[in-house]
Amino acid sequence: MADEMGIFETMYTMRAMRRLKPDPVPLETIRKILEAGTQAPSGQNLQAWAFVVLQDPDKKKFFQERYHKAILDRFGEGMTPDPNDTSSFARTVRSALHLAEHMHEAPVLLLVCGKRDWPFAVPKDKRVGHAPPSYGSIYPCVQNILLACRALGLGASLTTMHQMFEDELHQRVGIPDDYGVVATIPIGFPSGKFGPVKRRPAPDVTHFDTWGQHQPA
Amino acid sequence: MADEMGIFETMYTMRAMRRLKPDPVPLETIRKILEAGTQAPSGQNLQAWAFVVLQDPDKKKFFQERYHKAILDRFGEGMTPDPNDTSSFARTVRSALHLAEHMHEAPVLLLVCGKRDWPFAVPKDKRVGHAPPSYGSIYPCVQNILLACRALGLGASLTTMHQMFEDELHQRVGIPDDYGVVATIPIGFPSGKFGPVKRRPAPDVTHFDTWGQHQPA
Repeated sequence: MADEMGIFETMYTMRAMRRLKPDPVPLETIRKILEAGTQAPSGQNLQAWAFVVLQDPDKKKFFQERYHKAILDRFGEGMTPDPNDTSSFARTVRSALHLAEHMHEAPVLLLVCGKRDWPFAVPKDKRVGHAPPSYGSIYPCVQNILLACRALGLGASLTTMHQMFEDELHQRVGIPDDYGVVATIPIGFPSGKFGPVKRRPAPDVTHFDTWGQHQPA
Repeated sequence: MADEMGIFETMYTMRAMRRLKPDPVPLETIRKILEAGTQAPSGQNLQAWAFVVLQDPDKKKFFQERYHKAILDRFGEGMTPDPNDTSSFARTVRSALHLAEHMHEAPVLLLVCGKRDWPFAVPKDKRVGHAPPSYGSIYPCVQNILLACRALGLGASLTTMHQMFEDELHQRVGIPDDYGVVATIPIGFPSGKFGPVKRRPAPDVTHFDTWGQHQPA
């Protein structure tokens, strides 16, 4: 791995890539990305993740239709900013809508699942219905997967809107009840270019010893 | 960043490092780690994270005492495996106990906080009490922080046991009600060596199109 991409360079150029080419992703690349995911830490090292690689056109189309509807239900039909608006917000909305309309064209929709497990901070008498997946044990794996995609030149983005049709998704893909779907990651070669992300400076949200104290003692 | 550590090398050698030296971590290194954290994706790019860097000896001791008690309450006094037991499990238990006993000696206890926000999948009439922090928008940042620590030669580990005394922690550090503490990361130069992590092979938990189908169509 002598000439692999540097860790900071990878992090600093990992934009959400929502415009993807339909070209297939080689199986060995998918394997490599998922193996990178499994290097992540998890509570008690339980490694309670599971991956579903959707490549079947019918299943991807099913996913896209439900996802598109969920996005419109959530953000409203007014999700069409003025085409002359070049603000960062308008561009993000346009690319999110593009993704919702074209998700089935991505060569891979990756469902990252996690075993359901009540957090120990939830008292026994408050445990009603399904436990959530153990997010803290799955999202580090999700982030490794996103970074691995970037390092291998693949576009990806982190989506969670499947929550709005999760029962149906479970049924369609055969996911057992004791697993939840944590994130859906559309993966493919990017149409656009990787580039720097824009973030608020970390010092603005860094506190030393006491909340509100923005400089060290 | 030409000679920075490679992304895969970093992931594959990022063990939880629970035995730390007391030597201080330079401020600029802490800044760099947190800036790497803020490069992570977050829902709607809200970047709703906040960091509390605990370096004050009294506050670290407060944290260690509560944490140690919580660990013993949770896993029992029987958390002392036979010293001759060299299994991976026994070694992990010993290092977790070491951390609980010595946490205040770590130069930095980093609290990664997240703004509370009801997941949109939770219906309005089910929203009782505090919303949880938006885990999916904070854990990718946590993982970037852990990877940045590893790449800079710092030991770190992901802990969540603060949940057992979170109200008291909020009060002591002045964290506002609308933020939750997502993870506590003790950071310092490691006493031990970085090394490969042991994980189950990804193909065992990878499904293609349908759960249970371990080979692509």
